Amino acid sequence: MSNALDGAGLMARLDQLAQLSERPDALVRRFLTPEHARANALVAEWMRAAGMSTRTDAIGNVIGRYEGDAPGLPALLLGSHLDTVVDAGRYDGMLGVVSSIACVADLAARNAPQPFAIEVVGFADEEGTRFGATLLGSRALAGTFDPTVLGRTDPDGVSMAEALVRFGLDPARIPTAARRREDFLGYVELHIEQGPVLEAEGLAVGCVTAISGATRLAVEIEGMAGHAGTVPMAGRRDALAAAAECMLLIERRAAAEPELVGTVGRIEAGPGAINVVPGLARFTVDLRAPADERRAVALADLLAGFDEIARRRGVTLAASKTHDAASTPCAPWLADQIRDAIEGEALSLRSLPSGAGHDGMAVGAIAEIAMIFVRCKGGISHNPAEAITAEDAETGARVLARFIRNFTPRISPSRSRP
Amino acid sequence: MSNALDGAGLMARLDQLAQLSERPDALVRRFLTPEHARANALVAEWMRAAGMSTRTDAIGNVIGRYEGDAPGLPALLLGSHLDTVVDAGRYDGMLGVVSSIACVADLAARNAPQPFAIEVVGFADEEGTRFGATLLGSRALAGTFDPTVLGRTDPDGVSMAEALVRFGLDPARIPTAARRREDFLGYVELHIEQGPVLEAEGLAVGCVTAISGATRLAVEIEGMAGHAGTVPMAGRRDALAAAAECMLLIERRAAAEPELVGTVGRIEAGPGAINVVPGLARFTVDLRAPADERRAVALADLLAGFDEIARRRGVTLAASKTHDAASTPCAPWLADQIRDAIEGEALSLRSLPSGAGHDGMAVGAIAEIAMIFVRCKGGISHNPAEAITAEDAETGARVLARFIRNFTPRISPSRSRP
Repeated sequence: MSNALDGAGLMARLDQLAQLSERPDALVRRFLTPEHARANALVAEWMRAAGMSTRTDAIGNVIGRYEGDAPGLPALLLGSHLDTVVDAGRYDGMLGVVSSIACVADLAARNAPQPFAIEVVGFADEEGTRFGATLLGSRALAGTFDPTVLGRTDPDGVSMAEALVRFGLDPARIPTAARRREDFLGYVELHIEQGPVLEAEGLAVGCVTAISGATRLAVEIEGMAGHAGTVPMAGRRDALAAAAECMLLIERRAAAEPELVGTVGRIEAGPGAINVVPGLARFTVDLRAPADERRAVALADLLAGFDEIARRRGVTLAASKTHDAASTPCAPWLADQIRDAIEGEALSLRSLPSGAGHDGMAVGAIAEIAMIFVRCKGGISHNPAEAITAEDAETGARVLARFIRNFTPRISPSRSRP
Repeated sequence: MSNALDGAGLMARLDQLAQLSERPDALVRRFLTPEHARANALVAEWMRAAGMSTRTDAIGNVIGRYEGDAPGLPALLLGSHLDTVVDAGRYDGMLGVVSSIACVADLAARNAPQPFAIEVVGFADEEGTRFGATLLGSRALAGTFDPTVLGRTDPDGVSMAEALVRFGLDPARIPTAARRREDFLGYVELHIEQGPVLEAEGLAVGCVTAISGATRLAVEIEGMAGHAGTVPMAGRRDALAAAAECMLLIERRAAAEPELVGTVGRIEAGPGAINVVPGLARFTVDLRAPADERRAVALADLLAGFDEIARRRGVTLAASKTHDAASTPCAPWLADQIRDAIEGEALSLRSLPSGAGHDGMAVGAIAEIAMIFVRCKGGISHNPAEAITAEDAETGARVLARFIRNFTPRISPSRSRP
C-alpha cells in the first residue's frame, strides 16, 4: 500500500490550505476571492500529482478526473467544499477534498483494474459566506443554480456577477457547469461530523443515513402588557410566559423521538422592561429530522400544542415558516457499501443522520449520494477550535479508499435491460 | 355641601395641569423644568383659593397649609406628585393633589371645628424621569434625600445641582425641606390604582394595605452552545430551555399565593442565532409582595428551584439582586378610618396592596401612611391612554373628604402619658 493515506500527510495538506486566508488572524476564504483561486490552484496541483486531469468549471469548482479502464466511463464523484465561514476551522469541507485526492493517489499506486472513472470536486461555495446564498458550487454542478442570485452583493458592494468576472469567469456560462445524470454513478462525501455523537461513542467514523430536512418558524405571541407590580398573576396574559411554555414543549417533543431535534435560538420580549409584564414575545424554531414525514408530524404536534397554550392563556400566537427544506436521504445501496468498508476496516458500525447541511443536498438532484462522517473534537465546528486527530483523518481516508476499491455501481433497471 | 368635590371640576383642573407640558404632542413635566414651576404656581393658586397658605420648599415641593382650631397644630399630610413620565397620562400623581385641595376647599366651606391642621403637598419628583433617581421630593421632605444624586445629569448634561439653581433654589438648603416626625399625624395619598383590580370588581375606590416591597434579580445561565442540527437533544445543555423552565417556575410560584407577583420582563439568548443551541441566557425577575417575609420565602423558593433546574440540566446559573426594597405597610389605624369612610359613602369595601411605588414609601420614614386607590381604565398608566371617569374622581374625593371630616388622630402612648 502507498503512504498516500497517511494521517500526518493529510493534516499537513489541511494546514497548507489553512494558510490561504483573506485575514492573517483568522481563517476565512470566501467564494471567488484571490484565496479561493490560490486554493483551487493548490488542490489542482495535488490532483495532478495523484494522476488526475484537472479543470475549473464555470462557477469556480475545481474538478479532477481519474479515468477508469477506458476513457469516458461514468464517474464516481467524490469531494466537498473549499470555502469557509469567517473565523473558520480548517477541516469543514477541506477534509473531504484532501481525503478524496489521497484515495485517488492510493488507487493509482495500486494500479488495479477499475471499471469506472473517479472525479474529485472542490466546491467553490457551500457556506454562502460572501453572498448569503449557499451551495452555489454544487447547485451549478447539479444544474439547479438560480441565476437571480448573481445580482447579490457582498459587504463591499461587489455583485456575484462582477466577482465572477474578476475571478476570470463568465456569468453567462454558468449553465455549462451543469453535469448530466449519466455522468455519475453516485456522489460520496467525507466530512467532519460537526456534532458530538461519534466522540461520545468513541468512534472515528460513521455512515450517514440522510441529510436532515429542516423547518424554521418565526413565532410571535401577543398578550397584554402590564405593570409588573399592579397586575395580579390571575389576570395576566403574559406573552413571554406563553413562549416559555412553547419552548419546553418543543424540547419535550423533540426529545421524545430519536434523531429529531428542535431548537429555539432567538427570543425577545416586548416592551422588554424589567418592571413590565411582556405583551409581546418573538422566538424562532429550528426543527430537523432525517425523515420528512416525522418532521411533518412533529411540526403539526408543535403547532397544535402552541395553539392550545395560546388559547388557554388568552394570547394570540402566529407561527410562520421562514425556511422549509426536504431531507436528502443517502441511497441505501451506496450507504451499504460504505458500511461494508467501515466493517472491512474492523471498525464498529454507527449510522447517523447529518443535522447540518452539505453539498450532497444539491448534488442529490443529479446523483444518488452517501456520506462518511469523521469524529471531531467536542462536536465543535465553524470555529477555530474545530479539531480532528491525524489518526481519525487516516481512518476516514482508509474507509473511503476501501469503499472505492470495492465500489460496485448499481445496475439501474433501464441499463440492465437490452 | 359645597361643590368643591364635583367630578367635572376635578377633571377640568387635571386637564389644566395636563396643558403644562415640555412637549406639545405629549405630556411630560419633569423635575425643575419651567413647566414644573408653572404647575407649582397653578397648584399654589388653587391652594390659596381653598384657604391655605402656600410655600415652595428647598427641593421644589409646593406645600399648602390649612390651620386647624389653633395655629401650629400637628398636620394631617395629604398629597401626591406633580411630575410625570415621558408621554404620560394626566392622573398619575395629579389626581391626589387636585383631590386633596378640593377636600380642603370643601372643609373650609363647612367651617366646622378641626383639632388638627392639614397640609397638602405637590411633590416635585416621584417618577425620577429627569435624573434617574426617584422620590426626590418626598425623600427631601422625609429627610432621607441622598445628596450624592445632586451630581447626576439629565440627558442634556445639566446636573441636578445646576437645575436647582436655575429653578431658583439652593442645593445646600435641601436639608431645610426635611420635616419633623412631630409635624404630622399621618400621610394619606389618593392615587389611581395603575392596575386592573378595582375595574375588574366594578369598584370605584379601594383601600391600600401596603406598598409592596420588591426584589429584582438579574439571572444568567451558562450552558453549552451547539449546532441546532447536529447536537442530539439528549446531549444538550441549552441555557434558554433552562431559562424557560425558570420562567414557568416563577409564574407558578407567584400564582400560588395571593398578592405575590413575579415577572420576567427581559430575556436574551446567546449567541442568538436561529440555528445555534443557546449557550447563554439572561433574564430579569421582578418579585413583589405586600409582606416582606412572604417575599423572602418566595425568593428563597425561587432560588432553590433555579438551582435544582440548573443542576438537573447541567448548566450553571447565577442570580444577583439588582434591587431590594422593603414593603411600606399602611398603618392599620389609619387604613381603618379610610375603610370607615368608604363604607360611610355606601361603597363596597376592597382592600388591596399597591404593587407600584409611591411617595408614601419615602414619607413612611417620618409618618404613618395610608392610601386610597381610584379605579382607572384597563389598569393602564404611564401612557396617554390612562383614564378615569369624572364620577370616580368625585367618589374618590368624597371618600377622602369624609375621612378628613372624621379623622381621629392616634393618641401615641408617649403623648397620652403626662
